[in-house]
Amino acid sequence: MKAYSVYNHMLLPGSFRGLENDYWHLRSSVQIWDVSCQRQIEISGVEADQLAQLLTVRDIRNVAVGRCVYAPVVDFDGGLINDPVVIHAGPDRWWFSLADSDLGLWAEGLARGYGMEVRVAELDVWPLAIQGPKSEDVMSLVFGEAVRSIRFFQFERLEFEGRSMIVARSGWSAQGGFEVYVDDADVGVALYDALMEAGGAFDIGPGGPNLIERIEAGLLSYGGDMTRDNNPLECGLDQYCSLSSDMEAIGLSALRAHSERPLARRIRGLTIEGPPLEPLVARWPLRGDQGPIGAVTSAAWSPRLKKNIALAMVDTGAPDLVEVETPSGSRSAEVGAPRFP
Amino acid sequence: MKAYSVYNHMLLPGSFRGLENDYWHLRSSVQIWDVSCQRQIEISGVEADQLAQLLTVRDIRNVAVGRCVYAPVVDFDGGLINDPVVIHAGPDRWWFSLADSDLGLWAEGLARGYGMEVRVAELDVWPLAIQGPKSEDVMSLVFGEAVRSIRFFQFERLEFEGRSMIVARSGWSAQGGFEVYVDDADVGVALYDALMEAGGAFDIGPGGPNLIERIEAGLLSYGGDMTRDNNPLECGLDQYCSLSSDMEAIGLSALRAHSERPLARRIRGLTIEGPPLEPLVARWPLRGDQGPIGAVTSAAWSPRLKKNIALAMVDTGAPDLVEVETPSGSRSAEVGAPRFP
Repeated sequence: MKAYSVYNHMLLPGSFRGLENDYWHLRSSVQIWDVSCQRQIEISGVEADQLAQLLTVRDIRNVAVGRCVYAPVVDFDGGLINDPVVIHAGPDRWWFSLADSDLGLWAEGLARGYGMEVRVAELDVWPLAIQGPKSEDVMSLVFGEAVRSIRFFQFERLEFEGRSMIVARSGWSAQGGFEVYVDDADVGVALYDALMEAGGAFDIGPGGPNLIERIEAGLLSYGGDMTRDNNPLECGLDQYCSLSSDMEAIGLSALRAHSERPLARRIRGLTIEGPPLEPLVARWPLRGDQGPIGAVTSAAWSPRLKKNIALAMVDTGAPDLVEVETPSGSRSAEVGAPRFP
Repeated sequence: MKAYSVYNHMLLPGSFRGLENDYWHLRSSVQIWDVSCQRQIEISGVEADQLAQLLTVRDIRNVAVGRCVYAPVVDFDGGLINDPVVIHAGPDRWWFSLADSDLGLWAEGLARGYGMEVRVAELDVWPLAIQGPKSEDVMSLVFGEAVRSIRFFQFERLEFEGRSMIVARSGWSAQGGFEVYVDDADVGVALYDALMEAGGAFDIGPGGPNLIERIEAGLLSYGGDMTRDNNPLECGLDQYCSLSSDMEAIGLSALRAHSERPLARRIRGLTIEGPPLEPLVARWPLRGDQGPIGAVTSAAWSPRLKKNIALAMVDTGAPDLVEVETPSGSRSAEVGAPRFP
């Protein structure tokens, strides 16, 4: 491992061959990611459905057991607290697969304050992601052909060494793949080894979420591209906000109010001119003719597009050509959609 | 900077001269620590006193404005959620200076659920710590002689460049010092420079919380030595838990119940034989004659004591001599008090 980050108080392995080599490898073969840091907050009990719905502005009342949905969690003002994948794990049982914030404290504080009959717990579950175009071939060798019929954002309980685990078709890349919700550390190690062995013919290797790949795909990172200072509409997550539904959800009325006014800013994509830039450590300011108009939140050199690509929070009404103030100087950039196919 | 860690979603500068050189420097002169990651959660409003008290099992009803107290925050079962310093910043105004967890989500979830008339906010405040035996001399050159009369865990509002800031005698070392609650980024940079200049004659330099120094002092790290799986009694924090008080506080009744049974385990100090050990990445298991009896949570070589010293969560009734299973082999260790004077 060459680089890691800290995520939900745990280590997240980030790079193994260097950023660009990891990128090409992820696009062409298959990687195993230790994403144990995607902590699972389980909400269970007779009022679990009510609390789960209260926590997200996406209408999840018709999400069947066995399905997963990307579901923004916001505060009472509509500010993003987390953007988990929510898994309907069983009757009266929901798992929130977390981005980087202690959502369990929010959920339990609310549940206790409202006096709801639920249990909120962080599970001993350590997700393992198998990502890349060859992931289905490798997974079928380990879990059987049943994996091929799992549809996107659905899960089956499949067995490995006699242990039944949730296997979902999901993951934080656009290359396709699965996430296995490992709930036994010993089985996890054996599974890792089995996947490595089965994947030998497919050039399998370790990996992690890849900055270049996820910017190209427009996958936003909570804590980086979007924070509690942003509402999901600014982040282009409109389709995951059920503004016209009649369920009870925290922040829904605030979001409705936001939606009735013009947005002040919105996540956009930038193509920044010139040779590869240095890694972005802190946000780079953006300037238009009239002054500050936002900031770059993520940036990388795409070796495929041979361009600096970036995500940025940009004021509405900003021009199509802006200036980026990087630590190494000013660069022109073109504003467009927040994805780079 | 040679090493940093991630704390409350921010970077915490850790080492500048290497661990041992930083240790000697901290003990002999004075350091400036950028501890911006000690986030401040402010609770304000007409029910602020009630919510602040509800959040901690320490009786803070008689804590006057201008005072700070170390105050454990636990869940309804008594499990530690955070161990902040709580600052009575003004009438109906409390600041919780955080260890590494999103306590604001807990506080706001509870406040909203209970329908309390309070405002919970993470402040734009970035604490700067000045630590070490020469810290008073340096601080008095920048803030005036008034700093000398600030007593331990009390604060005054003092001016720098016309801006009034909270200056407390506190900090996460046993060497003495101050924390300045900087609430303006530009003033912060100017203050950093002014302290560096004033400290020139005292060999001032940058620094950060030091692993060796804080183990010697028995300062426990939340997330490392103690987690939500521990109650404060196990962590030797009895004196900060007001078990016989009549205030209303979350987890107080659970802690009372814990206190009526013998503790299952307790934080202890270990002296581990042999030459310097490798850095502890994951907890090292402890074994007695009868099997597993706990785990080492922090360890370092003390260049002053010329010993491996450690903190460990040890089962009650463990023998005084135990075996530590390090990645490089087994070592004998002596169990004693969790501090190394």
